[in-house]
Amino acid sequence: MKWSNYFIPTLKETPIGTEAVSHQLLLRAGLVHMLTSGVYSYLPLGLRVLKRIEDIIREEMNAIGANELFLPCLHPIDLWKQTGRDEVLADVMIKFEDNRKRPMCLGPTHEEVITNLVKDFIQSYRQLPVVLYQIQTKFRDELRARFGIVRACEFIMKDAYSFDRDKKGLAKNYDLMYGAYKNVFQRCGLKTVILEADSGAMGGDVSHEFMVPASIGEDTVVSCSACGFQAGASEENAEGKPCPKCKKGNLTAQVAIELGHIFQLGTKYSQAQGAQFLDEDGKQKPIIMGCYGIGVSRVIAAIIEKHNDDKGIIWPRQVAPFDVEILPIQGSKEDKEIKDLTDRYYADLTAQGLEVLVDDREETAGRKFNDADLIGIPVRITIGKRNLAEGKVEIKDRETNEVILAEKGQVKKKVSEMTGSVCRIN
Amino acid sequence: MKWSNYFIPTLKETPIGTEAVSHQLLLRAGLVHMLTSGVYSYLPLGLRVLKRIEDIIREEMNAIGANELFLPCLHPIDLWKQTGRDEVLADVMIKFEDNRKRPMCLGPTHEEVITNLVKDFIQSYRQLPVVLYQIQTKFRDELRARFGIVRACEFIMKDAYSFDRDKKGLAKNYDLMYGAYKNVFQRCGLKTVILEADSGAMGGDVSHEFMVPASIGEDTVVSCSACGFQAGASEENAEGKPCPKCKKGNLTAQVAIELGHIFQLGTKYSQAQGAQFLDEDGKQKPIIMGCYGIGVSRVIAAIIEKHNDDKGIIWPRQVAPFDVEILPIQGSKEDKEIKDLTDRYYADLTAQGLEVLVDDREETAGRKFNDADLIGIPVRITIGKRNLAEGKVEIKDRETNEVILAEKGQVKKKVSEMTGSVCRIN
Repeated sequence: MKWSNYFIPTLKETPIGTEAVSHQLLLRAGLVHMLTSGVYSYLPLGLRVLKRIEDIIREEMNAIGANELFLPCLHPIDLWKQTGRDEVLADVMIKFEDNRKRPMCLGPTHEEVITNLVKDFIQSYRQLPVVLYQIQTKFRDELRARFGIVRACEFIMKDAYSFDRDKKGLAKNYDLMYGAYKNVFQRCGLKTVILEADSGAMGGDVSHEFMVPASIGEDTVVSCSACGFQAGASEENAEGKPCPKCKKGNLTAQVAIELGHIFQLGTKYSQAQGAQFLDEDGKQKPIIMGCYGIGVSRVIAAIIEKHNDDKGIIWPRQVAPFDVEILPIQGSKEDKEIKDLTDRYYADLTAQGLEVLVDDREETAGRKFNDADLIGIPVRITIGKRNLAEGKVEIKDRETNEVILAEKGQVKKKVSEMTGSVCRIN
Repeated sequence: MKWSNYFIPTLKETPIGTEAVSHQLLLRAGLVHMLTSGVYSYLPLGLRVLKRIEDIIREEMNAIGANELFLPCLHPIDLWKQTGRDEVLADVMIKFEDNRKRPMCLGPTHEEVITNLVKDFIQSYRQLPVVLYQIQTKFRDELRARFGIVRACEFIMKDAYSFDRDKKGLAKNYDLMYGAYKNVFQRCGLKTVILEADSGAMGGDVSHEFMVPASIGEDTVVSCSACGFQAGASEENAEGKPCPKCKKGNLTAQVAIELGHIFQLGTKYSQAQGAQFLDEDGKQKPIIMGCYGIGVSRVIAAIIEKHNDDKGIIWPRQVAPFDVEILPIQGSKEDKEIKDLTDRYYADLTAQGLEVLVDDREETAGRKFNDADLIGIPVRITIGKRNLAEGKVEIKDRETNEVILAEKGQVKKKVSEMTGSVCRIN
């Protein structure tokens, strides 16, 4: 992709009114645009990151046998009345009456809709277990939208739902999800703290949260360095207090971003909505459910919070919008050797399955270098007259900021080594 | 993919209250599920078709230099007031007031939002042209939702927007889109009628509609068999009347589904919203715009309308949810040769980049055959005891209903010939 043909509107200045580093960098690197408080557009570069994260999630969900589907945003409120959650979630639920005078809402989550769907199709134990998931837009009318896309009114979630005959089946699917979530966050370059959690508005017994401690966030993780004990937000005021698990340590608190939450729901929804199956013993029983969410758009913010320096974003290779940036320094547009080499590297690396961005803009070298650091593509190839006079080209690793001079014929090999197993066919 | 691990809830009976064949087959083949009138979920098989159509659209959009982004569903009504379209589209616009007392709506289309976005980033003629597109959910509060996903309250659209310095640039981008649209529909197995059209609520001068004549639809195409003249819905009452272009023919009317509509908008939005650029001559000018829509979910319905028989759907290869179905007829689950051959074909064909569905369910052969015809995978391999005794396997082409007996060692080769260039890496 040539930068001149691609819409990457980087900003030189930090936008006012932005407190989180991730929010600042999302705007400055041309990844998102704010339409109104809590509502964002994903610009081409931001959408690329979103898609790479979504693909990682899809791979991990498919690997544990979950089937992807796509549920609607518009829900009849009658459905939510079956579980009483029209009241539980009233504060964040966006409601309206449609032209047919039906009371409707926008889905803040999808337990009711998926239970209604499964109820229409599952009659027998022979059809269980089933695990379904979607990646889709959710709506929550947040009075206090904060930290850019971390707490937004419209955001992208992966939500999965498991349907089992018995608690043993639920426990098995829960464990599979738990493992898949660990893989997802690890592949996104994030170290998560996993906490037993309160089930809150979802209901059910067992639940775990996947948190990333960061300099912003709406949750708190308290931990004891002596015994490794960790607990969630409800312990917020515990800082400095003795650890409940050991006598040696005191608790310290850290702000964190919640990225995932998994729940063993049991029969809360299936009972309220009448989603039953005929078991082997001839009895009608409510289906045993679990639900499993990842805040996909929020993952982007968490990655940026954890991977940046004073110059910009440092994308982990697996989620970078491009794998390689080629930066030709053009004294004049007519420098044929620089142009030919740019074209050759682009063709060679693209043929290897790498996604390559060429900064072919007529901008100063300084502006190009700054933008390259800002948007944070993992590998940068700089082709300039001075090095080329000695047959060399500069390769920079954005993560280590290490720069090497490579023979111009060795670039393909060097870049392959650096990008390693990330090569993708898109 | 094994059917037993995949959620394909086929129905034996035609659901009541469905008039369109596509609507009936969408429900019977387990592609969609109705949540409420005009609101549908895409089940796993339906989502696969949707994704294949989206990928075709993406390829054609990217090929003409359009950049993909992703805009929000929630819009401030203030933005719509700038163009007066809050009133023009009042009948279908879903409105509400949020917790901060802001009047908001759900986007029925995105001209206002994209113009607002581009306005923030484009200052100079040097930054033009720009062409942006998204594939995203739209909301229209249809009083009379009809024909399943053809006229729905929530649906998926590809909407593209071009931004140019002058009319010449607009005309060029318009022509590129026109060509891309022809490619998209052709690749989806659809023959479209392209009509000059009225610009209606969008505004602007030139516009074209892409229609597929079918047995259902909300539009009408009238045509003259003598001279080839064709015109759109406004001529509905022209049937039987003399053709305006020639003396030989009379007009005949056909019902049609509108799948695409492209518009040369000009400066309607940029002027109303103040999206200006500094031109080479030092003057501030409004950006010249075009907009280009495809009803993506509607394309699925049109494909089914045009590609079915009394047994079910006949997917064109390019948009089929799977490329090949393997149907083992298991007298008993323990028939090792049938099982081994099923596994071997699955591995071989998957390695070739084909998407393969194995109907491994413990159902009667009759049920499996019926379901295979219903869901309409292009190539079916039937492995049964009787043919296998002679070293043969049955291969069926769903389009021609032609069945051949192939030597069991020749299956891979035969299937490769039949699936041709469709092989994909997913």
